[in-house]
Amino acid sequence: MKKQVALGIDIGGINTPFGFIDKEGNYLAEGHIETQKHEDINDYLKELHLAIEKVLDTIRNSVELVGIGIGAPNGNYYTGAIEFAPNLRWKGVLPLCTLMKEYYPNLPVFLTNDANAAAIGEMIYGGAKGMKDFVMVTLGTGLGSGYVANGALIYGHDGFAGELGHTIVSPNGRQCGCGRKGCLETYVSATGVKRTAYKMMAKYNDPSELRAIPFNDMTSKMVADAAHRGDMIAKYTFDYTGKMLGEALANTVAITSPEAIFLFGGLAKAGDLIFKPTKDHMEMNMLKIFSNKVKLLPSKLDKNAAIYGAAALVWNELKK
Amino acid sequence: MKKQVALGIDIGGINTPFGFIDKEGNYLAEGHIETQKHEDINDYLKELHLAIEKVLDTIRNSVELVGIGIGAPNGNYYTGAIEFAPNLRWKGVLPLCTLMKEYYPNLPVFLTNDANAAAIGEMIYGGAKGMKDFVMVTLGTGLGSGYVANGALIYGHDGFAGELGHTIVSPNGRQCGCGRKGCLETYVSATGVKRTAYKMMAKYNDPSELRAIPFNDMTSKMVADAAHRGDMIAKYTFDYTGKMLGEALANTVAITSPEAIFLFGGLAKAGDLIFKPTKDHMEMNMLKIFSNKVKLLPSKLDKNAAIYGAAALVWNELKK
Repeated sequence: MKKQVALGIDIGGINTPFGFIDKEGNYLAEGHIETQKHEDINDYLKELHLAIEKVLDTIRNSVELVGIGIGAPNGNYYTGAIEFAPNLRWKGVLPLCTLMKEYYPNLPVFLTNDANAAAIGEMIYGGAKGMKDFVMVTLGTGLGSGYVANGALIYGHDGFAGELGHTIVSPNGRQCGCGRKGCLETYVSATGVKRTAYKMMAKYNDPSELRAIPFNDMTSKMVADAAHRGDMIAKYTFDYTGKMLGEALANTVAITSPEAIFLFGGLAKAGDLIFKPTKDHMEMNMLKIFSNKVKLLPSKLDKNAAIYGAAALVWNELKK
Repeated sequence: MKKQVALGIDIGGINTPFGFIDKEGNYLAEGHIETQKHEDINDYLKELHLAIEKVLDTIRNSVELVGIGIGAPNGNYYTGAIEFAPNLRWKGVLPLCTLMKEYYPNLPVFLTNDANAAAIGEMIYGGAKGMKDFVMVTLGTGLGSGYVANGALIYGHDGFAGELGHTIVSPNGRQCGCGRKGCLETYVSATGVKRTAYKMMAKYNDPSELRAIPFNDMTSKMVADAAHRGDMIAKYTFDYTGKMLGEALANTVAITSPEAIFLFGGLAKAGDLIFKPTKDHMEMNMLKIFSNKVKLLPSKLDKNAAIYGAAALVWNELKK
């Protein structure tokens, strides 16, 4: 009997990696194409289809493809379309599921945004197995999130639930790419850490290796490395980042009362540097009935997490 | 054939009204007892049982009782217990469903807190009929909330989800009864309105009829009445209350993306006084993708809403 596999596709701003994964999480084959080479999305999908088929050829005899899951920026689960993604060259509403179905008319095709896909990935393949209520927080250039309640992802009425990164945590605070001010992701994200490092250099007199680096060259990784070497400005930066995240998570706990909150992405890899202040400020700001109840955990998804998440979307839908 | 009815019980700090309601929302019979007369909760339940049976006698020939729903402060849906309710004389954990089942061994008994019951009431009997994603905000002495996503109430991992009133909206802000500072309900609630009226009297020089009223005698109703008469201090008070609520709702929309948000309770009856500034500030602070999508509506539950909510809990459970 052929092994059932799902195809997970992760449409990123630069690359589109994809992979074939079975229900147990075995990663069977993979490929990728560039995302932004073609002016016309149809040409992009044509190339993607060819690349998929080429990889599928290597395992075709032993597998049965049961569905396609796609994670994409601004991917709307309900409409199956990417809607006004700022990081893609194709503008407006892109009916991705419909377009993919032209190549795979007999397969179910599902789409959601990256953070929701990551949440489902965590639920099917990662640390949230068996959990019915949890929150996934993805820390990259921005801050994404996916909320699971009663065992189901919360898409909301229009498919755009889970925008924790765009809750305003500081009225009239930092300017955000969304056009507003004070959004959580301007504080808690790779970009946020970088901004905070400069705030701390302005505020304190401690010597710091970061003072030699121009804003344009700074990365959150440099701040983390400096903190690990004992740099005080870098440490203040992570403490502040954890404070902002912990306060926001305390409020999010009050709303959905999750069993656990998972942190995923580059920043989450900073370990105790980010987990300790986050946990401290979360507990400090939490309503007493939630004290010491909610686990703050690193994601168990790692390499190819976005592809795992996209493939997990297929298994999660077929389960319904 | 006998008409199926649910018994809804609303355990309040002072009174315990109850009523028999059918699936269509017909209110067939009602009664009530005092909540805090007995030192022993078993005596309270004995009296409640007698009162229920007496009322049931008047309709017993024509109805079939199918279940009992109870709304109570700190009522935990999962455990069926009231847990550490500050407003009740019985302390600790009260296993209410178990105790009620001693009187009604053959009936299902469900318990949840007042705001969750109100949300289910709105879904079964009120303005949220047919909605799968909405938020209920109950404005009383405090601020309660119930979140419905994917057609199901979010109880969270431990049964205590929906504490919007205890999200911190102003770090180091107003002292809250929960022991922390800056909780939403210290600004948005009957008590919050009263506190804000005094803040406005301190801040502005406008003459106001409220300046003649001592803090201890002031009610939010007085502030609303003054505002309706054109009192500027009272108007500033409602604008500020709406601003705080609108900002909090903008953040809540980003998380669960509801179709509608319902306002329920005394304050909600102030109409445009509270709805207009709330809606304005909600739109002003919302992520653009949600603009003008989310309805802000007055609850359609009115008289006996808590009993309707408790009875709705029964129908909602039997539907599962």
